[in-house]
Amino acid sequence: MRDFSADHRWLSINTATLRGAGRLDTIIEACARHGIRAISPWRDQVAAIGLERTAALVRTHGLALSGYCRGGMFPAPDAAGRQAALDDNRRAVDEAKTLDAACLVLVVGALPGALAGAALTKDLAGARRQVHDGIAATLEYAKEAGMPLAIEPLHPMYAADRACVNTLEQALDLCDALDPARSGSLGVDDVHCAALGVAVDVYHVWWDPALKAGIERAGAANRLFAYHICDWLVPTKDLLNDRGMMGDGVIDLPLIRSWMEDAGYRGMHEVEIFSTDWWKRDADEVLLTCRRRHADRT
Amino acid sequence: MRDFSADHRWLSINTATLRGAGRLDTIIEACARHGIRAISPWRDQVAAIGLERTAALVRTHGLALSGYCRGGMFPAPDAAGRQAALDDNRRAVDEAKTLDAACLVLVVGALPGALAGAALTKDLAGARRQVHDGIAATLEYAKEAGMPLAIEPLHPMYAADRACVNTLEQALDLCDALDPARSGSLGVDDVHCAALGVAVDVYHVWWDPALKAGIERAGAANRLFAYHICDWLVPTKDLLNDRGMMGDGVIDLPLIRSWMEDAGYRGMHEVEIFSTDWWKRDADEVLLTCRRRHADRT
Repeated sequence: MRDFSADHRWLSINTATLRGAGRLDTIIEACARHGIRAISPWRDQVAAIGLERTAALVRTHGLALSGYCRGGMFPAPDAAGRQAALDDNRRAVDEAKTLDAACLVLVVGALPGALAGAALTKDLAGARRQVHDGIAATLEYAKEAGMPLAIEPLHPMYAADRACVNTLEQALDLCDALDPARSGSLGVDDVHCAALGVAVDVYHVWWDPALKAGIERAGAANRLFAYHICDWLVPTKDLLNDRGMMGDGVIDLPLIRSWMEDAGYRGMHEVEIFSTDWWKRDADEVLLTCRRRHADRT
Repeated sequence: MRDFSADHRWLSINTATLRGAGRLDTIIEACARHGIRAISPWRDQVAAIGLERTAALVRTHGLALSGYCRGGMFPAPDAAGRQAALDDNRRAVDEAKTLDAACLVLVVGALPGALAGAALTKDLAGARRQVHDGIAATLEYAKEAGMPLAIEPLHPMYAADRACVNTLEQALDLCDALDPARSGSLGVDDVHCAALGVAVDVYHVWWDPALKAGIERAGAANRLFAYHICDWLVPTKDLLNDRGMMGDGVIDLPLIRSWMEDAGYRGMHEVEIFSTDWWKRDADEVLLTCRRRHADRT
């Protein structure tokens, strides 16, 4: 395994981790101050300061993008809604390309209306078909643009409202169905990768008895595009915003990393922590903790 | 499919649904008052009024037990703890037998210490091995007693602290490993069943893309011992005690029931709702709602 104890070159900060610190320019400057080499920003954060300004800041500080968050949210109650989602995903691909992101992360969406608290349907299989079709349409565009798409399976507790792709196996089945030729270009770390792959976030998949097998399968198909880390707290007090800092919870991070590396992954460790607790803290404290924990707890 | 619109003979009330109503004798009397034919009580509720008194009340009111909650919680930090768990599971088997329950439901446990908020280990695979061994030991005793054991896969959000068996497939793999001969006696509805099977609770498994296949597999092996119903609310505000009444959430209950019946299940629909909301309401309102929703929403 790679030795991270005195080398943070593989540490990336998902900028959602610093949502409490202010605008994206402030976040980027904090990351640069702490020697962070890569980030993964969210579209709303980019939009708030402008795409061109973001691109300029990223260049100025020599930052890589381990991913861009996020495309997806394909299901909609009608054809107009589905088309709007496809249009939006094309814009996300373009933005990811402008920022030279390693991949566009897809949080695929689920039951239309559920995220707003009023599901318009209980047809989970139908939502999954819409996700299949939405990724298929977006993939065509993404391949032309040379932007790998990373399906992020989300924890089953988000199956109703955020993503109805809930296991690595399910994500890889989609990959095999939609990108059987693994016809990508140069991707993560300039290694040839498939056009469609997965983002493995430990928070979503750590519980899965089939996780090791899924990582092996993804690695063998060159579909391991991103690796997100945080921790699962006990007790977890909120379904969305109570993720833990690496080392504070129950996920065996060195074990899962060993599976990733055995499967050939040599990319970034992206810290993505949605936490009302960590959002309250100073950006310097958060980043120092991320660096320290990445070095000795992952 | 069975017609429930004017027939509640297949409705069972898990007495956790009425935790706000007081002691088990009060709960049983409320169920009897509403013409409920079956219940599934919890051990702590039984202990509070006594096993013999519970048995007498059940007989007096002609109630069946669709299950007994619960055995399990096998992993422990040391051999003494594991032995204590086995001893406790034997007592649970004995109690289930005294009450003539259709099965003893197993919530298998997870990382030692996690339920108390301080996990002593991150070894999830090790916990799963302890669960395997604990069920194996308990099964010997249960077979002698003629008491079917029903493994209840719990939602992955409980993998750390309550149960590290998190999918139906995983539960059925355990069943096949430990009870390959399906060597049970007369079980649910006096139909021959395996010694080891599963309790399918929609709350825990509704999200699973492999659910239909798992139900078919369980049915073909005579391992469908129990079916628990409630609903998944959006948003879900608490990981443990925010389950919904049937019809108030996003689970397609008629669809999942159709899979159960196609797989041969003809047993009870056991309403199990952990909800601080419903616990505040009057027992009569809860039971009337259970009857009505069972009739037209499941």
